[in-house]
Amino acid sequence: MTEDNTEKQAFGEFIDTDAERMDELNINGWKIRQNSKLFCFGIDAVLLAGFARFSPSDRVIDLCSGSGIIPFLYLARGDLKKITAVEYFDYFCSLMRKTARFNGCEDRIDIVSADIKSIDRSFRRGSFDVLTINPPYEKNGHGIDCPNPVKNAARRETLCDINDIARACAYLLKTGGSMYMIHRPSRVCDILCALRANGLEPRVLRFVQSKAAEAPNLVLISAVKGAPPYLKVDKNLVIYNEDGSYTGECNKIYDCKEL
Amino acid sequence: MTEDNTEKQAFGEFIDTDAERMDELNINGWKIRQNSKLFCFGIDAVLLAGFARFSPSDRVIDLCSGSGIIPFLYLARGDLKKITAVEYFDYFCSLMRKTARFNGCEDRIDIVSADIKSIDRSFRRGSFDVLTINPPYEKNGHGIDCPNPVKNAARRETLCDINDIARACAYLLKTGGSMYMIHRPSRVCDILCALRANGLEPRVLRFVQSKAAEAPNLVLISAVKGAPPYLKVDKNLVIYNEDGSYTGECNKIYDCKEL
Repeated sequence: MTEDNTEKQAFGEFIDTDAERMDELNINGWKIRQNSKLFCFGIDAVLLAGFARFSPSDRVIDLCSGSGIIPFLYLARGDLKKITAVEYFDYFCSLMRKTARFNGCEDRIDIVSADIKSIDRSFRRGSFDVLTINPPYEKNGHGIDCPNPVKNAARRETLCDINDIARACAYLLKTGGSMYMIHRPSRVCDILCALRANGLEPRVLRFVQSKAAEAPNLVLISAVKGAPPYLKVDKNLVIYNEDGSYTGECNKIYDCKEL
Repeated sequence: MTEDNTEKQAFGEFIDTDAERMDELNINGWKIRQNSKLFCFGIDAVLLAGFARFSPSDRVIDLCSGSGIIPFLYLARGDLKKITAVEYFDYFCSLMRKTARFNGCEDRIDIVSADIKSIDRSFRRGSFDVLTINPPYEKNGHGIDCPNPVKNAARRETLCDINDIARACAYLLKTGGSMYMIHRPSRVCDILCALRANGLEPRVLRFVQSKAAEAPNLVLISAVKGAPPYLKVDKNLVIYNEDGSYTGECNKIYDCKEL
């Protein structure tokens, strides 16, 4: 597990540790440590966690883990014995370690500080059965940059782009292994082209929309390394009823794996 | 306009001219000549015709025209002064000529028998502003072949595949020109990759589903030659209400351009 901290350490001044807080996971009293000035998990992480499929003993890796919402959801729910979380920023790795200590699951999570662009320094090829990733959505140079580069990197492809991500996923997964991603519909062409170019065949697309009769604003994507081409486009997932309550399906995603 | 009839003539034995009939277009008394044993237009052609955007004087070309439903819809509605229709099978070209004669629009349609794989024999590069295409949906070798090779070619990529099509579209369109296609959701990855690889940037995806809360079974796709990447995924188009009647939006597509 090699780490290159040269670049990472430059971000220290943009991290306000006073903004840390413990948030409820609403599963067995588990909590997650987050920094309200940097990045706190949203519904996209929960949807991605509900979308991925694996067996409890699968070797699962989560990339762009941030505060670790995906890994800690799986561990809290008892879906997995162990999981590996990869995060670029040492600071977020330290938050994950605090969360693991609080919930008493330090032996179930392998927290790795690594750059996706040089992921081969940290792992052997084909080491994982399943991969999850909630990457930065926006292209670098598109829209207005956030002045805080750490926050910006969570939203925008400043540190790695979709091609770097697809390359890393293809490297980490065994042949036949599956990856699950959530992203923006506007990036679907970029994503499908990058996955296929790296031998990860897109298998399921599921668009997510806030309410019925709206355009989708998120998309869930699965791909299988080395699979033959055949894409299934599922019916769209609707988050809210007209009255603002969660739809039955969305409630199920939040609750179905709760112990 | 060079034609290579060597291969085409071999299909004559599979064409039963007794199965020809005149069908209503329900626009100003216009009719279309179709062969009920080969291919008759469905809702996908109507949806594609409603999806494409152009000005009346644009140079518009329709590929894989078959009996010519897309061109004749536009001409009947008065949307276009002139249109070019390209079809591989001489037999379908002869049907289009009969339809043009019946409706008195022979001077408004240029019917070209050509192979998409050698489209440069028939047209100069960049000759068109707008292109429409309702291509065969299924991959060659997938599913059960239809014993009639003419009918099979309308459903399956036996004569040209999505890469041949994207190449031809890129050749025919001027830079900045738009193409509009309808296809199957299962082919979205193949389509987006083929379009982008040929310099046709996908701009709009609109999935079409039979009823609300169903998975989509068709997809409308637009692309612009030489445009920067940005994909808009529209809200899904629903064809039928629960009672089996057309939805308001679908009725509008059938009716809005009627004179």
